[in-house]
Amino acid sequence: MQLDDDIALAQRLAEAAGAAIRPWFRADAGTERKDDATPVTKADRAAEEAIRRILAAEAPRDTIIGEEFGTKPGSSGRSWVIDPIDGTAGFLAGRPLFGTLIALVVEGWPVLGLIDQPILGERWVGARGRPTTLNGQPARTRTCRELAEATLATTGPHYFDDHDGAHFMGLAAKTDHRRMVMGGDCYNYAMLASGHLDLVCEANLKLHDWAALVPVVEGAGGLMCDWNGDPLHAGSDGRVLALGDPARLDDVIEALACAH
Amino acid sequence: MQLDDDIALAQRLAEAAGAAIRPWFRADAGTERKDDATPVTKADRAAEEAIRRILAAEAPRDTIIGEEFGTKPGSSGRSWVIDPIDGTAGFLAGRPLFGTLIALVVEGWPVLGLIDQPILGERWVGARGRPTTLNGQPARTRTCRELAEATLATTGPHYFDDHDGAHFMGLAAKTDHRRMVMGGDCYNYAMLASGHLDLVCEANLKLHDWAALVPVVEGAGGLMCDWNGDPLHAGSDGRVLALGDPARLDDVIEALACAH
Repeated sequence: MQLDDDIALAQRLAEAAGAAIRPWFRADAGTERKDDATPVTKADRAAEEAIRRILAAEAPRDTIIGEEFGTKPGSSGRSWVIDPIDGTAGFLAGRPLFGTLIALVVEGWPVLGLIDQPILGERWVGARGRPTTLNGQPARTRTCRELAEATLATTGPHYFDDHDGAHFMGLAAKTDHRRMVMGGDCYNYAMLASGHLDLVCEANLKLHDWAALVPVVEGAGGLMCDWNGDPLHAGSDGRVLALGDPARLDDVIEALACAH
Repeated sequence: MQLDDDIALAQRLAEAAGAAIRPWFRADAGTERKDDATPVTKADRAAEEAIRRILAAEAPRDTIIGEEFGTKPGSSGRSWVIDPIDGTAGFLAGRPLFGTLIALVVEGWPVLGLIDQPILGERWVGARGRPTTLNGQPARTRTCRELAEATLATTGPHYFDDHDGAHFMGLAAKTDHRRMVMGGDCYNYAMLASGHLDLVCEANLKLHDWAALVPVVEGAGGLMCDWNGDPLHAGSDGRVLALGDPARLDDVIEALACAH
């Protein structure tokens, strides 16, 4: 089957990226500055180059959309969407919670997603219609009976603008805020897929930040959507929700509608 | 020497705590609620009990001050200050960044500190007048030439009250805020001691949250103090700063004095 082949290819991409990244973790990461002043490291570039080399050889007709080197157009209608290191700030701070994100997107919809943590040796694989796995074992979200008992995660309030931040605070106020965790980037979605937290709420995400997360979370029994509850598509506005228990969707949307 | 014996004892305490904690990580952690609604797990209790058993046998005259079971008075003038799981919210969210904190405090001053991460197998040991080690190898902070280039970490803005939060934001605005990381608890101080970030700023910390950090950070070449720049003592107000490069102290205190 094509999907099996695509999963096997995505696994090889993750292997290559991990091999490129590991030497730079907690080493002199040779940090430079991009124009927008976000940190970028030799590790990001080396990992994306390794992925692009494999795709050029094995999937030459597919589009590649990568964080570091932009878009290489293809003719197949399929796009590999790559974030070589999601969570660069955490990577630079020595935390083994960053991830390599690899997604296959068809007609704007992610059909395959992979979150790889190459230091801890953890890999979540999700594909439309299949159960999500962590290192080959099933991963499942947990139930959440009430929003007041939900553990919420977000990478940091400094990633919201004032308007979105006020709505995030509206949601946070309705959850179990003593258990709220900050930081984490893609690792929060992986932990949600494995049943260790209930909600992730973020804004200003780009396609490469969220595309791989959708099949992982949804194949584990969760739900991803925008802040209106609509499915995430390549044209979405970057406001992203993940729920471990889809039954809490109405409560989350209602709480998020109230600025705080 | 007494200090060598104390370090060896602290290592045994950390071993015992780690053995008690590991089975509960990403398992059903049997979470209960304390009166103040912070999460507490069977892992916290099991780890602190394991530590107390060893101290009762090997250091019966020393005071024990633990997060979970309070103070057991002693007669030696020495106090073991224990936080079995610093970063319980992160622990519950499946992150291997929590730590067991073990400090020896004499006359209110920490003279020995240990940060143990039992999932990753990382242990920082600091003692007054000695170089800090990570798993037996020297750990060193890094230099920071300008505050504008500093990476700042804090566990989360929800741990500040409004007044302290405004001053924290004053500091954050003067640092490289694109690299700022949230979450992390004691692990931020460990990463600072190993030269991966420059500043940690927190408030509302209790003695058991910070006592072990001081010898680790200072033995690695850094500095810990309160928000006025004064040394941390058992009577400090819970506002805590860690600097990898002590030369930035005046800049940090000045930035923190401006609410934002």
